[in-house]
Order: sequence, then C-alpha cells, then structure tokens
Amino acid sequence: MWDLARRADGALARHGVSLAELAERFGSPLHVVSAAALDRNASDALAPLRDPTSGPACDVFYSYKTNPVPGVLARLHAHGIGAEVISPYELWLALRLGVPGDRIIYNGPAKSFASLRDAVRAGVAMVNANSPGDAAAVGRAAAAEGRVANLGLRVTLGSTWGGQFGLDAASDAPETTVRAAQRDPHVVLRGLHVHRGYGIRTAGDLEGYVADVLAFCARLHASTGWYPDTIDLGGSLTTATVAGIPARQYRFNRAFATDLLPPDPTGHLTVAAASRLAASLVAAGAAERGVAVPTVVLEPGRALTGDTQLLLTTVHDVKAGGGIPHAVLDAGINVAEPTSGEYHQVFRASGPDARATRSYRLVGPICTPADVLYHHWRLPELSPGDVLAIMDTGAYFVPFSTSFSFPRPAIVLQDGASVEVLRRAETFEDLVARDAATGSDEPA
Amino acid sequence: MWDLARRADGALARHGVSLAELAERFGSPLHVVSAAALDRNASDALAPLRDPTSGPACDVFYSYKTNPVPGVLARLHAHGIGAEVISPYELWLALRLGVPGDRIIYNGPAKSFASLRDAVRAGVAMVNANSPGDAAAVGRAAAAEGRVANLGLRVTLGSTWGGQFGLDAASDAPETTVRAAQRDPHVVLRGLHVHRGYGIRTAGDLEGYVADVLAFCARLHASTGWYPDTIDLGGSLTTATVAGIPARQYRFNRAFATDLLPPDPTGHLTVAAASRLAASLVAAGAAERGVAVPTVVLEPGRALTGDTQLLLTTVHDVKAGGGIPHAVLDAGINVAEPTSGEYHQVFRASGPDARATRSYRLVGPICTPADVLYHHWRLPELSPGDVLAIMDTGAYFVPFSTSFSFPRPAIVLQDGASVEVLRRAETFEDLVARDAATGSDEPA
Repeated sequence: MWDLARRADGALARHGVSLAELAERFGSPLHVVSAAALDRNASDALAPLRDPTSGPACDVFYSYKTNPVPGVLARLHAHGIGAEVISPYELWLALRLGVPGDRIIYNGPAKSFASLRDAVRAGVAMVNANSPGDAAAVGRAAAAEGRVANLGLRVTLGSTWGGQFGLDAASDAPETTVRAAQRDPHVVLRGLHVHRGYGIRTAGDLEGYVADVLAFCARLHASTGWYPDTIDLGGSLTTATVAGIPARQYRFNRAFATDLLPPDPTGHLTVAAASRLAASLVAAGAAERGVAVPTVVLEPGRALTGDTQLLLTTVHDVKAGGGIPHAVLDAGINVAEPTSGEYHQVFRASGPDARATRSYRLVGPICTPADVLYHHWRLPELSPGDVLAIMDTGAYFVPFSTSFSFPRPAIVLQDGASVEVLRRAETFEDLVARDAATGSDEPA
Repeated sequence: MWDLARRADGALARHGVSLAELAERFGSPLHVVSAAALDRNASDALAPLRDPTSGPACDVFYSYKTNPVPGVLARLHAHGIGAEVISPYELWLALRLGVPGDRIIYNGPAKSFASLRDAVRAGVAMVNANSPGDAAAVGRAAAAEGRVANLGLRVTLGSTWGGQFGLDAASDAPETTVRAAQRDPHVVLRGLHVHRGYGIRTAGDLEGYVADVLAFCARLHASTGWYPDTIDLGGSLTTATVAGIPARQYRFNRAFATDLLPPDPTGHLTVAAASRLAASLVAAGAAERGVAVPTVVLEPGRALTGDTQLLLTTVHDVKAGGGIPHAVLDAGINVAEPTSGEYHQVFRASGPDARATRSYRLVGPICTPADVLYHHWRLPELSPGDVLAIMDTGAYFVPFSTSFSFPRPAIVLQDGASVEVLRRAETFEDLVARDAATGSDEPA
C-alpha cells in the first residue's frame, strides 16, 4: 500500500527514495505529493467516462478547497478533471491555471458579485446558486456582462448537510426559485446541485443518496415541469484508509491507550465505481419520468487526493511525564489539523525497521495542550531526529494550516526517483512581508 | 465600553470614525486595532513596576503567539513591555523589531538548536527549558557560542497544564534537572517558569496558583538548596469581556436559541492588580524561606491585547432554512476561529441603531457546516451589506487564521481619527507566490 517499502537499512522508501532523506534534503516538516498516486486516481476516476462500452458515467470536477496547490491541480487538469471552486480566489486560480470555462463549476455560499461576473465572462459550466438571492445575483451578473449564465440550484435534503447551504427541500424555496430562474432572461436553468456532506463509503451509501436526489427531482418535475439537464451530486466520496475516529474509540484511546483502529476497507467505493453506479441510477430515474437523461457530475476532493500525499515530521524531543512519553514533533495542529478527528496511519520512516511496541503521545510544537495529533500511538522506540510519516494528508491538511508561531512547510512532488519543489517553505521574512514598517527601529 | 458610540445616523463609531466606513474603505473582513487600547493596557500593566511607592511588582513580557503583528508588538515594546517568544520565528521577530536580548524570554517545547544559539548570542533574559534534554541543549548551545546562558526550568504542577510541557513536579525530574544545570559550566540557573494555562480571572485564582508555585519553590529549596532568582509565572490572565462558553450554555444556545451570556466582570483581575498581588506573595514566600526576593515575571497575552482589536465582517446573504435565518458573513472560522468556543460581543455596526430582536445563525463563507461563529445571536434585522463588529479579537484570531478558500484580511491601526494599514490584505497572487510554475500553461 502507498507504494512504500523498507530499504535494506530499514528506512522507509518510496520508489527507492528514503523519506527521511527527503526531510533532510528539503526541510522538515515536509508535504510529499506522489505523482504516481495522482495520475492513478485521476485516470481511474475518468476511465468510465472515457470508455464508451462501460455504460453511463459521471463527469468529474475536483474540489479545489481540498488541496489547493497549483502543482497538484494542474496535474489533475492535465488528465481532464475539471475544477469545482467555491470562492473568488479559487475561481481566479482555475482561470489562472488555464482551465477552460466549461470545465469549471462555481459553488459556495459567498460568491462576490464581481466574481459572478468573472464566472459569466469565462462561460463556466455552471454557477450553482446557494439561495434565492444568489440565483438572482447570477442573473444580474449575466445581465451586466450582456450574456446568459448557466445556472444550477443547490438544494439540501433531509439526508444531506443543510444549514447555510442551499434551498431547503422541506420548504417551497426550490419551486419558487426554479420559477424565478425560468423568468430570468439572463440565465438558463441547467442543473441541480446536491452535496451529501456525510461521507459516501459504500455503494449502499451512494444508492440511498441518489435515490433521495431522484425523488426530489421527480417532485420538482411534478410541481414545476422542469427536470434538470445536469445533476451535480457534489462530493463526499472518501479515502479507503482514512475515516473519522468514532467518539468512543477516541475516548478509549485517550483514557486507556486502546489502539485506534484503521477504517474497514471492505466494500469501499472507488470514484470509478461511484461514477458508473450514480450515472446508471440517474439514467434509470430519467427513463421513469420520461425525460432526457441528464449529465451527471461528481465533485470528489478527498477521493482524488486524500491518499496522494504524506507529511514528514521530525521528532524534536521525547519527554517523560504524565504517564506516557510525549514525542514532541515539529508538525502539530498548525500543519496537521485533521488528525485531531481523523485516523491517519503513522509510521516511523527512519530505520531500522522495528515493531511498533511503545505507546507515545504525538504532540506538536505550539504552546497549547490542544496541540496533540494522537493521544496514544504505538511506534518503535523514538529518539530526537527520527522522522515520522503521516499518511494520506492530501485532503484538508494544506488548506487548514496556519502560520501559528512556525512558518508553513514546503510541498514537494515525487515522480519516481525525481523530486521537485511545488511550493517552497514559508520563510520568516514571508510572515512579515505584508506588514508596514513598524516605525520603531529604536529598541524599547 | 470599547470607546464605541453611535453617531447621529446610528452607525457605530469609535473616536468619530464609522466602523462600517472603515470596512468599505479598507475592505472586508478587516481587523481594526485600537492604538488607545494598546497604550492604555501597556501603561496600566507597567504602572506598578514604574511606581516605586506601590510596593513589589512584576516585570511584563508579551506573549508573541497571541497576536504576532509587528505593528502591535512594536507599540507594546515602545512602552517597555518585553517579548515572550516560543519559536525560532518569534525569536527572530523580536530581534528584528529591535528588542534587546535582556527583554526577551524564550519558551516552548520545540526550540531548534540554531535558535538556541541565536538566543544565547543575543543574551536573552532567560531560556526556559521544557525538558531535561532541552536544558542540556541550552548548555551545548552556550558552549558552541563560548558564552554562558541564563537558564530557567519550566515546571508543571498538579494545578497547571501538563502533558508536553515542562518538568513534572510529581516526579524527581525538577531536582535532577536542577542538579544537572548546576554542574553545567555554560548555564546559570536563574529561574523557574510555570504557566497555569487555565484562565486566571480573579485574585483568588491568582492566590491559589502562586501558593502552589511557592510551595514547589520551597520543596526545591529543601531538596536542592537552590531557590530561583526569577520566578516567571507565565500567562493565563484574561480579558474581562471574553470567556470560554460553558458547555451547557453552548448546547442550550444551539438547541433552543437561549442567549449566550457575557462573562461576569465582577472581581476581574487586571494585569496591574495581578502584578502587585503576585509580587507581594512571592516576596512573602521568600521572606519565609530566608532567601533573596526573586524577580517576578508575568507573560500576559490576552490580557494585554484581547480587547484592543475588533473584526469587521460584512453580511453577504441572509438565507432562510432550518428554522432560523442564516447570516452568511465574509468572515468565518478561517478568520475568527476562537468564536467557536469563546463569547465575543457582536454588534451590527451599520446604522440605524435598533434593538437586537432577531435571532440569526452567524456563518462564514467556507463550505463546511462547521463554519459557524454562533448558532443563535440576537441582532437587529440584517440585510446583505450590513457590517458586523466582532469585539475583543486581539487574541488568537490572527494567528489561528487560515487562507482556506479566501485570502486573509488586512489589519489596520486606528489612532484617534487616523487609520493606517499595519498589514495589507493577502492578494490572490500572494496565495501562489511560493509555488513553482506549474509547467501546465496549456489548458487541460
């Protein structure tokens, strides 16, 4: 798994490259992206769409917010994956990376009017409105540009995330917004956008979710006569080796040092399998209503990049106290925020190979007791200078990182034996580059 | 309170300057620092030390991590406040701001060896070692520099934060580390560092805490013959108008829209009062042991800057659904992470003045249902474009901010009617400035 192997000297290596040596060469902590894994995930995800013999399939747009690193995004785009963006910045980034407008979907609850105009001008595939006001703003932006916008409506069902998102299916907001959009000469109402939010790990999860979406489409068809020509099913597909830590397991790990358990990989749904299944279900639903078969879109984030990245971190100190040795790492919640609630495999990357017999509290460098990656994690004996590899860090580690007391680390891309810098580490100077001269060159 | 007043048109203003106009002029969201509040807090905190007639008092070092903005730090230093730093970056920043070495204290669990050498070279007032290994590293760094370092030992007591921090007083680590330091020719063992962690809101909190520290000093004196010549009591002093939200109140607010209650200001301890009280207690403790009276140090963070800053944010959309109107703001947990657990007063800054009669869910712009500032907060009627002021954001808002989908906002300093930019907002270009060219100018 993860293309990892132990070298003869016991050091953990990928494609023959020692991870600990990478940390030494490029600095620690270090994000390491795997080109092979990115390529594999992207081409697997698009394979059903590319293979006309395999039946209906979904188009795939990557959720930028999951890991907004230009080098990662460009590699996914080179395979033909589209861009799913949720902010003016992400829209700008997609355009900057040369993504054609018709390969961009613009979502999110806080799209600025200026960015809506940019989106309309770029001819994006769909702007999914989050509210009646947002839908009206899309029309105004299109009018201001003298164009017609492709509009989608975000809808929330009882089985999906709700709250600040979308038109509540428990109200008549979907119907009134459909009718308003149909009257707006500056939009073409293309699609529906739904996002489950809760992870889709199995075929059963997906079937239940798509059934809810199709039932809603049928209702809307009955009440308004309108049926979407694009159904955007959003994200929520998962990484087989990552999952939220169940609350009880978390408490037992914290209080009694019980091991955290890796998620059960049985029946884990790949993007390709999700693509075939969702598109077939949607086609069947359309046949039932007697309407044209809609285009189906998936917006995976984690499922495309979660397992394509690892984080190397170095043991700074091993400190006794409180009944368990604390391994003080140079990466904490400032760099690895998701570990506080998610299971991620952690290996000692530096050799020699040894059994994981000792329990450590893995803590970070910032001065808060909340800076704990895992309360108890079994590893071989650790000493200062040892390098750990935290696996599957390609979703939400980079975007949730802060510069809390420590600059943010570099991101490198490993392609076989070759390694190049995608994003250099922050320097001390970077952290004050936006600051005015303080006017206080005199010491206090 | 907060120097705020309503103008004739109902807009909230400080020193005559409308806050909503500031957001328009400098962009939204916007951090606004109050020069008057910084000056007041800094001079109040040092007043006991400056007034020889007021009895014993503590020296004051600002906890950089709390709000590491050069313009804020420089203003505190201009009053004579020292620098308490916890990372190589923060040490570099203090030196860069011209803070003399003897006005710097270096703490933290992950001090690099290179930074220890820098600290020794700068002659910092004290390097507080977090572990036996850290204490030994200070000696080695001093040896490498051909100097003698001022060493302190971080100790954790039963009533303070423990875990990854310090020498556990429940073990003999303090004694063995004192003895090792006394044998090390490259360090002078100057002090003890203790940090309560749990907030010190009242004189009673402080008295109990200092009593624990003095009891520990007495034990160490008895067991090793050594008594510190500096007692660094750390931080944990609070802001009167901010407190953690009690769990039960949080749940009731979330489930039943019960109002969150501002913290009780009764008996809230100022830094000046803490300075006098702590120093008197330490002097009495020294008299009891028959030793010289130690220097006493406080390292406030929140108590110096918490109430010196506010965050302006603009209502992007007001969306129905889920039983409560959602006010979608342009600042969420990406900019205002501490609101998820802390009470901060929130006002509608745009006029006209009106009673807070409607309950809103205040949510941010990023695409997660976790992006909630407050589940129910009563405000006057809100419309898109209204500006809200979140108060007391001068502690941990800036350092815990991320660039999640949105660039980070500007920080301005208001000094009377004049307003200047301390830190300009991040641009889209800034967010990719550290990235290599992607090698993919061709669209996918």
